[in-house]
Amino acid sequence: MAHNISTPTQALSLADIERLVTRVFRVNGCDEANTAALTRTVVAAERDGALSHGLFRVPGYVASLRSGKVNGAADPQVAASLPAVVRVDGDNGFTPLAIERGIPALASAAKKLGVAALAIRRTYHFAALWPETEALADQGLFGLACVNNMPVMAPFGGDAPLFGTNPLAWSWPRPGKAPVTCDMATSAMAYGDIQIAAREGETLPPGCGIDADGQPTTDPAEVLAGSLLPFGGHKGSAMALLVELLAGGAIAEPFSDEAGAADNGDGGPVRGGELILALSPEMLAGDEWASHCEAFFQRFAAIQGARLPGAARHKMRLDDATREVNSRLLDEIEALAH
Amino acid sequence: MAHNISTPTQALSLADIERLVTRVFRVNGCDEANTAALTRTVVAAERDGALSHGLFRVPGYVASLRSGKVNGAADPQVAASLPAVVRVDGDNGFTPLAIERGIPALASAAKKLGVAALAIRRTYHFAALWPETEALADQGLFGLACVNNMPVMAPFGGDAPLFGTNPLAWSWPRPGKAPVTCDMATSAMAYGDIQIAAREGETLPPGCGIDADGQPTTDPAEVLAGSLLPFGGHKGSAMALLVELLAGGAIAEPFSDEAGAADNGDGGPVRGGELILALSPEMLAGDEWASHCEAFFQRFAAIQGARLPGAARHKMRLDDATREVNSRLLDEIEALAH
Repeated sequence: MAHNISTPTQALSLADIERLVTRVFRVNGCDEANTAALTRTVVAAERDGALSHGLFRVPGYVASLRSGKVNGAADPQVAASLPAVVRVDGDNGFTPLAIERGIPALASAAKKLGVAALAIRRTYHFAALWPETEALADQGLFGLACVNNMPVMAPFGGDAPLFGTNPLAWSWPRPGKAPVTCDMATSAMAYGDIQIAAREGETLPPGCGIDADGQPTTDPAEVLAGSLLPFGGHKGSAMALLVELLAGGAIAEPFSDEAGAADNGDGGPVRGGELILALSPEMLAGDEWASHCEAFFQRFAAIQGARLPGAARHKMRLDDATREVNSRLLDEIEALAH
Repeated sequence: MAHNISTPTQALSLADIERLVTRVFRVNGCDEANTAALTRTVVAAERDGALSHGLFRVPGYVASLRSGKVNGAADPQVAASLPAVVRVDGDNGFTPLAIERGIPALASAAKKLGVAALAIRRTYHFAALWPETEALADQGLFGLACVNNMPVMAPFGGDAPLFGTNPLAWSWPRPGKAPVTCDMATSAMAYGDIQIAAREGETLPPGCGIDADGQPTTDPAEVLAGSLLPFGGHKGSAMALLVELLAGGAIAEPFSDEAGAADNGDGGPVRGGELILALSPEMLAGDEWASHCEAFFQRFAAIQGARLPGAARHKMRLDDATREVNSRLLDEIEALAH
């Protein structure tokens, strides 16, 4: 979100941000449980400097509450229907409350069985994935999560969109430290960044997308009318396909193209299943697992120029100063509180 | 392996290949069970046209048998030590027999629990990963496998090797059809292809590697003296790190740099743990899972230019004609049979 630097900003404390979004969600039809879960998600993103998943998403959340697509009073139900699989029916709500209710059962199953999965259905995901994988890492578990979304990306070699930007995230626990966390879209560039580049009249780096005729282009407006492309050619495309299958086919949730076709276009998230895996390194590898991995992370850190995924975000987390919020966005959100 | 086209070849039937490698493994100290498992692995690779994992690997297998590093009479033991985790102790053998013994228990656990893992320790992996993930797909299960290897690749931004080329494979079952299978190194280019490019005096595409000073180079000899690079920048690098953690840290097996440091340099595989996950779409998604996914694959196939991963290999599999084998390689392997 380097784009924001040149636009006017306003300093808010995290407590101010929390109060603002709490009011916005309440006013727009969320009950207390959903308001609290959504607010935690937005504030965590702003705290960590993950601006594209914080306040930036609030207008979209509100649009889907106002259109009636998403149930602000959703009451997600947890069912452990298979020994190693926890299911949550999200009751057509946003995903954060479903995640918060499902994670304890998933963690419990993984600690008992060694590995377990959480399948979240009938929800709308519009946030980063690291809150859920880090919640598992906080309990000493490896967590991996993926989710489908709006179909805006072509498979490698293809000329039309089929995949979402299909993010995949994982966290590796480091007792006493922030986990190693990777949370990445499988697209070469984030959708929001392409939208902003189009608004600002910027040119994209090569390889980010194709136009409506399937031809490579660096014009962000043409990419938005055509297709984004996966990162890393055919390998990144295979990762996007893997996410489609795990978050869609594996749990009887829509593929991204089905979700897009069924959506009302209100600007909020489309329906998208989420699959979360948890694995206990302590149970699989024994007592020495943490020191074995910590020594590896030290060797990693000793390599000139190498950075562990998530480190920049975790550093930002420790900064309890105010956050600079885009003034136009802030005005827009404040208007939604009435 | 397009490199091979200009070199002399000799036509062999798959039965001829099977007889040849059976003799080679027997003569070099493998017992019947290991000979059969290794031969199946090599023949399957040649059958599918996966030349870099077929006969090409035989001299390396033999080198590790002759050096005494790998136990040709290994008797891998299966233990289901946690409800959702099957462990195999590979007894310092090559991995194929350990896989063949562990997969039935893994499949059984996944069908009962929904999801399960197989942790293979104390083995030497020198083959493709799709044989194991496709063995799971043949039983209607999603399978994912990963393995560490020799440290030859720098993390993104780094100037020295730490990771192996860390492959990751997965297969999605399609009842009555070959599965969708992706088996990919997390390096931008395969190590063997860089070796061949060096031998032939070729230049690499940009982005494949760095020299010993950490500077980008397209000279394959300089990359071999320096480091390979991950595919897809920081995202591919994070995938390589994920493989290190799952195949090493999660199951108390060596990280690639530890495996490299402990190896005797005989030219065969280094010790490397393997983690395999299995998930039952039928149990998680219900009876409609296959038709839901099949309709998606049809929409995928309808996109001009898009190809499902593994399709070229599965087409080659159906061809029961002879295979063209590099004559120099064939001479080398025949010499190993005495």
